[in-house]
Amino acid sequence: MATFTAHQQQMMARALQLAEQGLWTVSPNPAVGCVITDQQGNIIGEGWHQRAGTPHAEVHALAMAGDAAKGAIAYVTLEPCSHYGRTPPCAEGLIKAGVSEVICAMQDPNPLVAGKGLRMLQDAGIKTQSGLLEAQANHLNRGFIKRMVNQRPFVTVKLACGLDGKTAMANGHSKWITSAAARKDVQQFRAQSCAILTGADTVLADNPSMNVRYNELSHKPAHIDQQSLRQPLRVVIDGDNRLSADLTIFNQPIPVLLVNKSFNKAVGESEYVKQWQAPLAQNNKIDLDALLIKLGEMNINNLWLEAGASLAGAIIDTKLADELIVYQAPKLMGHSAKSLLNLPEFEHMQQAIELQYLDVRMVGHDIRIIAVPQYQ
Amino acid sequence: MATFTAHQQQMMARALQLAEQGLWTVSPNPAVGCVITDQQGNIIGEGWHQRAGTPHAEVHALAMAGDAAKGAIAYVTLEPCSHYGRTPPCAEGLIKAGVSEVICAMQDPNPLVAGKGLRMLQDAGIKTQSGLLEAQANHLNRGFIKRMVNQRPFVTVKLACGLDGKTAMANGHSKWITSAAARKDVQQFRAQSCAILTGADTVLADNPSMNVRYNELSHKPAHIDQQSLRQPLRVVIDGDNRLSADLTIFNQPIPVLLVNKSFNKAVGESEYVKQWQAPLAQNNKIDLDALLIKLGEMNINNLWLEAGASLAGAIIDTKLADELIVYQAPKLMGHSAKSLLNLPEFEHMQQAIELQYLDVRMVGHDIRIIAVPQYQ
Repeated sequence: MATFTAHQQQMMARALQLAEQGLWTVSPNPAVGCVITDQQGNIIGEGWHQRAGTPHAEVHALAMAGDAAKGAIAYVTLEPCSHYGRTPPCAEGLIKAGVSEVICAMQDPNPLVAGKGLRMLQDAGIKTQSGLLEAQANHLNRGFIKRMVNQRPFVTVKLACGLDGKTAMANGHSKWITSAAARKDVQQFRAQSCAILTGADTVLADNPSMNVRYNELSHKPAHIDQQSLRQPLRVVIDGDNRLSADLTIFNQPIPVLLVNKSFNKAVGESEYVKQWQAPLAQNNKIDLDALLIKLGEMNINNLWLEAGASLAGAIIDTKLADELIVYQAPKLMGHSAKSLLNLPEFEHMQQAIELQYLDVRMVGHDIRIIAVPQYQ
Repeated sequence: MATFTAHQQQMMARALQLAEQGLWTVSPNPAVGCVITDQQGNIIGEGWHQRAGTPHAEVHALAMAGDAAKGAIAYVTLEPCSHYGRTPPCAEGLIKAGVSEVICAMQDPNPLVAGKGLRMLQDAGIKTQSGLLEAQANHLNRGFIKRMVNQRPFVTVKLACGLDGKTAMANGHSKWITSAAARKDVQQFRAQSCAILTGADTVLADNPSMNVRYNELSHKPAHIDQQSLRQPLRVVIDGDNRLSADLTIFNQPIPVLLVNKSFNKAVGESEYVKQWQAPLAQNNKIDLDALLIKLGEMNINNLWLEAGASLAGAIIDTKLADELIVYQAPKLMGHSAKSLLNLPEFEHMQQAIELQYLDVRMVGHDIRIIAVPQYQ
């Protein structure tokens, strides 16, 4: 394995920081950052990819470096592309600018393309290395990577409950479990998602908007204003056509994909509302894996799930959830209150779904836990 | 409010650190530490109270300082005592040694005694101050203080569950939810408790020892060895005499208080096993508050509760729990699994029992949450 100097790590960390700003706007493309330094290690160019169809990170960084790029070192969070798309290949741009070395965090996740950009650079006599802060780069683009490798979006399941895992009183009363700070935190995650998935239960119970509210975003990149804010596609599962056209979610200028078994005439279609009749799984419910494939085809990288115990439980039970984000309010609601997740009845502790805790912290008065299911 | 210098805070922090070592052995007395410095601020004496009937912290610190105590400054985590007990009053000792100033973290929690030690010092011409790191000193002796002020022990409820708040599968299968690291952590808390409270449900289900196991203690003060390790009194609630003499808990050389409605002949009494017929509450169950008063009379400062959802729920519902320690294993068990706490059915979120999170951290693979109920 290649080893890198502290300076090289700092430069790639900076490139990752730049890349991160793109997460709000860049999909379906990956977020990419680029730093160019002279031979003495001084930064002479920086750039990041903001939006599909606009110049890539390397183009911005090379433009900033200008003639000084000759003989310089480029740090890129993702292997430079080698193909002609809406923009010319970045590998070609780096060659033309005369850089002497290119260091990548990771290769292109698409196995059909991986290594081609690096080879193009090598063929032009440029020194290349890959694997610097690779884990971080993988994490940054886990949605894009999941779609490239598995043709499905990366699925994050958002859950909210009290300390005893309860979500609502037996009679359904649940407003509000978590604090305003937690709800703002959710807005941050929604804003960085390509789509939000919910179910008819939730839509009927809460009549939610499931949108991103600019005023509730506490940490946003400087380039994000009310105009450029991306509204995720709302995907609503309503297998039995229980929803009607008057619900808030169907009356906003934001796209909705209504997923059902047969066309819902009461809702119909419009400029913003489309319907999709999904294949059914063996239990005669909507086939969740087929839905994820459909969303992958629609270029959805990151899917954010906010739903009730049934849909959230089903996506975990079918091993399709990649990550859980659980907000635990400082409340006890007791055994008769509603449980967090519907799962099949297990007989042994060995059947419990194992998790790995990634991150635990306070968000306002609530605890936020990020966990990754360890499916067997 | 008095203000203190950084140096004074450091000295009291040191005294608190010394005091803490006593928590394993000192009950029913409070844990107390003492630091003596010369006028230049150099530490010339240190001491802490190890065991009831043995010299207090001030005595040890004065002995170490010797003649240098003349004109010195004493930092004590608790107001020096002014009464003749098994040892002479510490205030008298400080006067005789000729210290010029005494700084306390807090006054004596017993309202009948508070301020008397300080007044004795003042009357002898010694400068006194109180309130330095008072919150920390209060926390250290919260058990002793609760008993002095409320005539009841400080009650800590230990709970263990998965991330969805479940404790066992529907069929009762539950071994092991939490990791070995969490179970070791529990041993640390048991070792610092005066008594452990459990119920017949738990004793019948697990046939536990509910003792402190020396080999499982990872962090123990240097003075604690297998011999000096204190075994907490085990208090077992068995209202309906369901327990029998062959259970492990009745067959160890460690005291048990069996709490019931009528004498349990099947268990009987022995050198270690005593029975107590408790008054009944309105619901015809053992009156938990009466039990706490009884334990207060028995000089129990810190009560550690390890029980099932019924007893743990009851002690919270009756507002008698002072603190919860919840271990959350990285597991999901689903809605049909058993819930953490039995509480009355609430209709509104406003009825949920509010908590304040004090501490959240990882213990092995589990999350440990310390929370304080905010009863209304």
